[in-house]
Amino acid sequence: MKHPPNSTINTLLIHCEDAKGLVYKITNVIYQNDLNIVLNREFVEHESKHFFMRTVVEGELKTAKLIQQLREVLPSNAKIRLSSNENKDIVLMATKEHHVLGDLLIRNEFNENRGNIRAVISNHEILREFVERFDIPFHFITHEDKTRKEHEAEVLSALQQYQPDYVFLAKYMRILSPEFVEQFEHQLINIHHSFLPAFIGAKPYHQAYNRGVKIIGATAHYVTNELDEGPIIYQSTTRVDHRFNAEQMAQAGREIESRVMAEAAQLVLDDKVFIYGNKTVILD
Amino acid sequence: MKHPPNSTINTLLIHCEDAKGLVYKITNVIYQNDLNIVLNREFVEHESKHFFMRTVVEGELKTAKLIQQLREVLPSNAKIRLSSNENKDIVLMATKEHHVLGDLLIRNEFNENRGNIRAVISNHEILREFVERFDIPFHFITHEDKTRKEHEAEVLSALQQYQPDYVFLAKYMRILSPEFVEQFEHQLINIHHSFLPAFIGAKPYHQAYNRGVKIIGATAHYVTNELDEGPIIYQSTTRVDHRFNAEQMAQAGREIESRVMAEAAQLVLDDKVFIYGNKTVILD
Amino acid sequence: MKHPPNSTINTLLIHCEDAKGLVYKITNVIYQNDLNIVLNREFVEHESKHFFMRTVVEGELKTAKLIQQLREVLPSNAKIRLSSNENKDIVLMATKEHHVLGDLLIRNEFNENRGNIRAVISNHEILREFVERFDIPFHFITHEDKTRKEHEAEVLSALQQYQPDYVFLAKYMRILSPEFVEQFEHQLINIHHSFLPAFIGAKPYHQAYNRGVKIIGATAHYVTNELDEGPIIYQSTTRVDHRFNAEQMAQAGREIESRVMAEAAQLVLDDKVFIYGNKTVILD
Amino acid sequence: MKHPPNSTINTLLIHCEDAKGLVYKITNVIYQNDLNIVLNREFVEHESKHFFMRTVVEGELKTAKLIQQLREVLPSNAKIRLSSNENKDIVLMATKEHHVLGDLLIRNEFNENRGNIRAVISNHEILREFVERFDIPFHFITHEDKTRKEHEAEVLSALQQYQPDYVFLAKYMRILSPEFVEQFEHQLINIHHSFLPAFIGAKPYHQAYNRGVKIIGATAHYVTNELDEGPIIYQSTTRVDHRFNAEQMAQAGREIESRVMAEAAQLVLDDKVFIYGNKTVILD
Repeated sequence: MKHPPNSTINTLLIHCEDAKGLVYKITNVIYQNDLNIVLNREFVEHESKHFFMRTVVEGELKTAKLIQQLREVLPSNAKIRLSSNENKDIVLMATKEHHVLGDLLIRNEFNENRGNIRAVISNHEILREFVERFDIPFHFITHEDKTRKEHEAEVLSALQQYQPDYVFLAKYMRILSPEFVEQFEHQLINIHHSFLPAFIGAKPYHQAYNRGVKIIGATAHYVTNELDEGPIIYQSTTRVDHRFNAEQMAQAGREIESRVMAEAAQLVLDDKVFIYGNKTVILD
Repeated sequence: MKHPPNSTINTLLIHCEDAKGLVYKITNVIYQNDLNIVLNREFVEHESKHFFMRTVVEGELKTAKLIQQLREVLPSNAKIRLSSNENKDIVLMATKEHHVLGDLLIRNEFNENRGNIRAVISNHEILREFVERFDIPFHFITHEDKTRKEHEAEVLSALQQYQPDYVFLAKYMRILSPEFVEQFEHQLINIHHSFLPAFIGAKPYHQAYNRGVKIIGATAHYVTNELDEGPIIYQSTTRVDHRFNAEQMAQAGREIESRVMAEAAQLVLDDKVFIYGNKTVILD
Repeated sequence: MKHPPNSTINTLLIHCEDAKGLVYKITNVIYQNDLNIVLNREFVEHESKHFFMRTVVEGELKTAKLIQQLREVLPSNAKIRLSSNENKDIVLMATKEHHVLGDLLIRNEFNENRGNIRAVISNHEILREFVERFDIPFHFITHEDKTRKEHEAEVLSALQQYQPDYVFLAKYMRILSPEFVEQFEHQLINIHHSFLPAFIGAKPYHQAYNRGVKIIGATAHYVTNELDEGPIIYQSTTRVDHRFNAEQMAQAGREIESRVMAEAAQLVLDDKVFIYGNKTVILD
Repeated sequence: MKHPPNSTINTLLIHCEDAKGLVYKITNVIYQNDLNIVLNREFVEHESKHFFMRTVVEGELKTAKLIQQLREVLPSNAKIRLSSNENKDIVLMATKEHHVLGDLLIRNEFNENRGNIRAVISNHEILREFVERFDIPFHFITHEDKTRKEHEAEVLSALQQYQPDYVFLAKYMRILSPEFVEQFEHQLINIHHSFLPAFIGAKPYHQAYNRGVKIIGATAHYVTNELDEGPIIYQSTTRVDHRFNAEQMAQAGREIESRVMAEAAQLVLDDKVFIYGNKTVILD
């Protein structure tokens, strides 16, 4: 959803326990603040009686006043997020593979989403030349001869100079500690391959090949302390067949990973994703 | 979206020119009527400044009062539709092909959507045995030795005894007159094959075969007086290749037509479709 | 691939260890037998050096002579299958769900694939009325008050009167014993839901709902003694989102299961599937 | 299909009128030349009795002898193409849009297909900086103040220094003259948007928007003198809805164009495409 650059567009995301009249009460506050609703979508999850609403408003914003007035009409534990339509700052973390990274860099180069890639951090040098072609700073921070703690401290230090809104793990192949993850709650997004059925353990593409699967997929999700088990943002699948060996299945997997990460990036950069428990609600 | 049978669920669809505060004003009326909003989705088309809102409400409804109060806060030319979640009555019109028909009859048999198929009308006898297996009345109304006007008068007479909410043209191979179409504005839904590129004239599958197309598709749309040019509800495509001859392409086309009609039926029966100009807005 | 009913079309499937000159030697035999090759597809799996070839031939067949001549040029452990293009006999086994069953019955009614459904066997009565609408014999064989062995003996006895080429498990919800499965090697085909990631244990759709998955799928496979682990024939996926509760996810799962079973049935009825180890090679 | 770099892999494509024994006769020649068949696929188009065969062979090749021996067993007008698995040389032609171009450059950078992009030729300067980041020569050849003939002569001159196997029109927005096209028969590949239904004339995305289409697509095809009517190589589609304005539909169109061109490039670079009449047969 692109808007004219000069307009004053903001996105409001609210979620809380459901109650009668919430849409009315919230839109009343918006109306009193002389804002125009461009787009509004509300969803109540029936099972948990939880309310979600995403509203795109146009007009001059008095943020503090708006938030305060919303607080007055909402349940006390309501979560309110107000986000301008300015581009968000992103840092990418990668290891050796270029696929997901390359796709994101091209989109960045041509402003195809609402993100600015500020830097790439990698524990290998191999992608430096490629990244620097796009005039993006490349930080090589090796993990060799360092404890996990030491390595993460250096990564954190590099990250902090950019104050990113999001960190995308573009095939970053190291496990992050709970301490690291906690500092980027709801900001860390990862991508990984996914199969039907799932394969546990090493060399999943070899397992998929041996099993003769006909479809492989990819999942983008927020990173939590449960490895690869955080709230899912986007998934997609693609067909393979007997002609694919394990390496060719892996190549098909990389293609679908790039596409899924691009889609997930778009959703979070457009402020369309709510996190609730271990799930996402996506209102667009 | 299925709801417990005893609850009082209704769907409200409103569209009109956009104005500041519409969501607030409408939800205020809903709140004053002591209704709970289960789901709300609003969309403003930027180009035309036209407002669309679909709201699913739960609670005891005083219909006349609700509509009147809505009229008071809405622009004078607003379109308001209020629809209960009871099943809608449907009549199918067919000619000789069973595909789209069979799929709809199976879904009807097992209550898989919010429609009741009350009857099938056909200008051929060939589908009678199949239809009657499902205990659905079959009306054979031949067009032979009749003018179009005479034939349509008989069809109309058969239709009127069922007072259908919707008439689905399940491969009905005759062109309907403007006079007929006018009596079922926004109630007549048709399905037809679609190609990239499109083929004009007779035997489209032979043309598609000769052109070596790799994809064929289907489009479900409301019937207007512009032949096959009414507002599109749903489309889908499927892959073909050099191994398909014209007949096999036609078979692939029939499969995709069945699926597209089922999907379109679901959308209209769930009251998710707005018609605006020659387009649809689908809020779900 | 449909052929004129009067032509003499047969499909030859050969697989064996790879060796130089196999295509030449096989097609030489075919040529000497005065048969015309309509379609030929050959594949060598690089990893295992295993050769697969599917050939559709047209002409008068002297089966015994052809097989003998092929044996003379092929490695001693070569697997040769020769299949006419007559329709194959099928028995369906079901429990209570109609989805996969209904789709197969409709296709049968209108001869849309190369199978004849000869009977339906169920351990419940509930689908009888529906099945009998299609004039298909329905065998109710309850499992209650019987050992698995006793129940399977009765099912076997019912099956034997039809001598089916294939038995499709159309949501048959009981586990079959190894003894039963052995009697139908490469003839038993099952369908089940599949997820990314996979969910172990009971109520998979509730697990998928709680996990917030965005895609669900289905897998059709040959039945072996490894539960749901036999060679995969076909898979497909469909999108779900936060608006689907567990029951709605299950409904989406049923739709995709029907489609996947129809596709898998087509592939085996058209003699396109090789089984090799725990995988399939599909040549079309 | 990737092969170990040191092996001697070649792909043989033959098509001609069908005759009994062709597969046998061709594979006999292959066998006599001591070549191993890695993969073989044959197809006879029933309607036209035309024979197509693609064979991947491994072993030392005596090209002239092989071709001569094939000629001796094939009908006199048979078309024979023998292609090594070395990378093919490609030149891209572009105008102002980067999408299709960027995707192809990234794949080139990481050797993801069997092509080497040798240069980019454009009638605008705008893409120079981007292209040169990949160390690919960029030829700016303006069409301004030149006749079509003069402009094409300069383009030809630039092309000739690279002797490309293929020229991909990556959103090259000028019509090529028949004289130009003739010099690159079966070497020029173009991509363009495609719709269901098709829209004739200017601003197709505005027409698609006004029509409320739910799907847009793209078609990659060989360029012939019939504008956008050459043999189709690959097509794909993607979903849009009422939230897309004309510009956003165009953006979705660009994404699908990139993907379709990448897929078509892979097919031609892997020597999988036969051109026959105005159609393609793709054997893989």
